[in-house]
Amino acid sequence: MGRLVLASRSPQRRAILEQLGVAFEVVVSDAEELVAGDPVEVAVENARRKALAVAAPATVLGVDTVVALDGVVYGKPPDAAEARATLSRLSGQVHEVVSGIAVVEGGETRTASATTQVRFRVLDAAMLDWYLATEEWRERAGGYAIQGRGAALVAGIEGDYLNVVGLPVQALLGLLPELLRGEPRPRA
Amino acid sequence: MGRLVLASRSPQRRAILEQLGVAFEVVVSDAEELVAGDPVEVAVENARRKALAVAAPATVLGVDTVVALDGVVYGKPPDAAEARATLSRLSGQVHEVVSGIAVVEGGETRTASATTQVRFRVLDAAMLDWYLATEEWRERAGGYAIQGRGAALVAGIEGDYLNVVGLPVQALLGLLPELLRGEPRPRA
Repeated sequence: MGRLVLASRSPQRRAILEQLGVAFEVVVSDAEELVAGDPVEVAVENARRKALAVAAPATVLGVDTVVALDGVVYGKPPDAAEARATLSRLSGQVHEVVSGIAVVEGGETRTASATTQVRFRVLDAAMLDWYLATEEWRERAGGYAIQGRGAALVAGIEGDYLNVVGLPVQALLGLLPELLRGEPRPRA
Repeated sequence: MGRLVLASRSPQRRAILEQLGVAFEVVVSDAEELVAGDPVEVAVENARRKALAVAAPATVLGVDTVVALDGVVYGKPPDAAEARATLSRLSGQVHEVVSGIAVVEGGETRTASATTQVRFRVLDAAMLDWYLATEEWRERAGGYAIQGRGAALVAGIEGDYLNVVGLPVQALLGLLPELLRGEPRPRA
């Protein structure tokens, strides 16, 4: 494995690689993304497009995360009204968070995906008001951030937590087990 | 609910309350803790002792988190050898992380607990060496920190993620639903 390039603007994904002590750089190129279809196919194809859009002599990692309920993909809500509508649909339900990852290395592309079940509390109007006022719904698939105030909305999960934050660490280690090699430094 | 006092030194617990936007202070008094017994009883009793040890005209929150496998409670390993032994026992298994919480308010004490299942990857000697070298096992029940490099050890969880970090948020909101009241400030 050469140097690692993360093909994502997401600060959450950067934070997860830092949490693991992985050295990486960020290079992002625009790629047209699918917004509808089978959740796993959408996430994996978008991850592949993001990774392939970056031309670098490196190991390039593309990632895409979508929220799906009853087979419908929920992306980033465009405004507060849509965020409220999405969160109302997720209220009291179990939805899926699906991430696709693509690793491009020396002309070869490998992909994987991970799915985590997320069970939401029943959200009453006061809870929706409280959460929407945090503004966290912006730029978040499904309109919530589990690593932020959104933790208060989540009754429980089943699967990889970091997948819900935005990077499926176990799937990534499956594709790149050498990611953790090297001398780790103790965290502060 | 008056002002909230967290009766814990844990930086992880402070970080979780901050994540939720809750205003609080930290006041810690020493309390003798149970180290063996039924995991739920141990965690709840220790949480109660920690909360009752703090004399403050406030809502006092005590929390204790233990790791249990096959009914055996694993505390903080005293040294690297014991950390390796604990992690070896958890390797490839599903263990329970149990937190007890106690809220003391105006002479009344209410308690709750939460249990999250954590499934570990099979850890080979290289993975154990890698993880022990991070020094994260220090001061952590079960010898790992899921919010740190320890995320690489965890195949998946079932339940409340923040309970594994050290504060069962949903159980806490059950005891103190008013915790989220007030004007939230957007996170940076």
